[in-house]
Amino acid sequence: MFLGRIIGTVWATRKDENLVGAKFLIVRQLNLDYSEASNFVVAVDSVGAGVGEVVLVAIGSSARQTAFTRNKPIDAVIMAIVDKLDIVIQQSELMTSKN
Amino acid sequence: MFLGRIIGTVWATRKDENLVGAKFLIVRQLNLDYSEASNFVVAVDSVGAGVGEVVLVAIGSSARQTAFTRNKPIDAVIMAIVDKLDIVIQQSELMTSKN
Amino acid sequence: MFLGRIIGTVWATRKDENLVGAKFLIVRQLNLDYSEASNFVVAVDSVGAGVGEVVLVAIGSSARQTAFTRNKPIDAVIMAIVDKLDIVIQQSELMTSKN
Amino acid sequence: MFLGRIIGTVWATRKDENLVGAKFLIVRQLNLDYSEASNFVVAVDSVGAGVGEVVLVAIGSSARQTAFTRNKPIDAVIMAIVDKLDIVIQQSELMTSKN
Amino acid sequence: MFLGRIIGTVWATRKDENLVGAKFLIVRQLNLDYSEASNFVVAVDSVGAGVGEVVLVAIGSSARQTAFTRNKPIDAVIMAIVDKLDIVIQQSELMTSKN
Repeated sequence: MFLGRIIGTVWATRKDENLVGAKFLIVRQLNLDYSEASNFVVAVDSVGAGVGEVVLVAIGSSARQTAFTRNKPIDAVIMAIVDKLDIVIQQSELMTSKN
Repeated sequence: MFLGRIIGTVWATRKDENLVGAKFLIVRQLNLDYSEASNFVVAVDSVGAGVGEVVLVAIGSSARQTAFTRNKPIDAVIMAIVDKLDIVIQQSELMTSKN
Repeated sequence: MFLGRIIGTVWATRKDENLVGAKFLIVRQLNLDYSEASNFVVAVDSVGAGVGEVVLVAIGSSARQTAFTRNKPIDAVIMAIVDKLDIVIQQSELMTSKN
Repeated sequence: MFLGRIIGTVWATRKDENLVGAKFLIVRQLNLDYSEASNFVVAVDSVGAGVGEVVLVAIGSSARQTAFTRNKPIDAVIMAIVDKLDIVIQQSELMTSKN
Repeated sequence: MFLGRIIGTVWATRKDENLVGAKFLIVRQLNLDYSEASNFVVAVDSVGAGVGEVVLVAIGSSARQTAFTRNKPIDAVIMAIVDKLDIVIQQSELMTSKN
């Protein structure tokens, strides 16, 4: 799963018939310090998440393993809302080589 | 799903027998301001989309979850036509670190 | 699917028993002006394609949705031979931001 | 599979109903010298791994092939804890071209 | 599939119960001139390949389509050992634009 923040919504009235009722959310990928990475995906919500929330997104066939998304042409699903990150090992402790 | 714009068509008469009737569209990936990213995919249309339209594309096994694409060697499908994007949180509001 | 050109062949006599008879082709990814991108994949042919031809390649589980590739450890298949690209919208028409 | 180190935990009380009991771990990808690469994933543990350990992560539908993850919206699983790497061929022995 | 060279082994005694007996090999991706690319994967062997050999690797669900890997949390498999590459079209013949 990747970490992201919901920043908006995609409106699409013409879509596959199985997608009626789907909520397409724009999720920008986050780094571990909550800064935004440059890429985003459009994901379907399965947990009642809203704009501004930090979430986990599952992609690929795993995105179809929820009650709403099963057997639908959906390749990204929001399956958890993040309360907090508990980062025990900081990057500086381990990094010795330049990346 | 990713956001893209249909910019053209691929003509292919010799193809897998299950692909007869498939419409191969060239979809260039879009950024959130509708500017074009550098990559593109060839996707099959399942919603009657045409050149110039902004669409959502599902990839992988999820691309086979439509009536037309099921059980076919297709890894990208256009499953929605975008009316508009509603971006509530601008990147500048959240970004504090350089990316 | 991605656009590619077949540039050669991989010879492999020791392989999974279900791969006997598979033709492994080296496919270099192409840009829309037919210039070559830097990456390549090894794909199995399902349409009688040969070296020099421009083709479409499907990857992942979709690569197993042909008569020959079904249930085999193959993650890329050539499923169409391209006659021509019909690019209606040029990148310069749409691009306003630097990418 | 990719090589990674567990550096922390994600807390998420609101999640898909099938994910109750899932332990979401933050895994940073490692290079072969154990230095950290820049990307990370959130993976579910299936082997009792803990923070600081070096592990293997399987992604995609393969992440659902464990007793705990089956049929769940999970796209990354920790399926092995690494004892050691035995690198026989050093990169300097083979590399002649600039990468 | 991608082209790689086996450069070492991963030892992991604590792993998913279905992975007992799996041989985890470190495979560095190769360019067409056999120089090494910077990325690597850990793959399971299904063809008796050993360190130093040039191989093909299938990833994703296709990695589970061998007798040994079926239904296991494995996302990369060595399914062929390469005898030789027969590259008919050199990049210099086709390239006209800078990549």
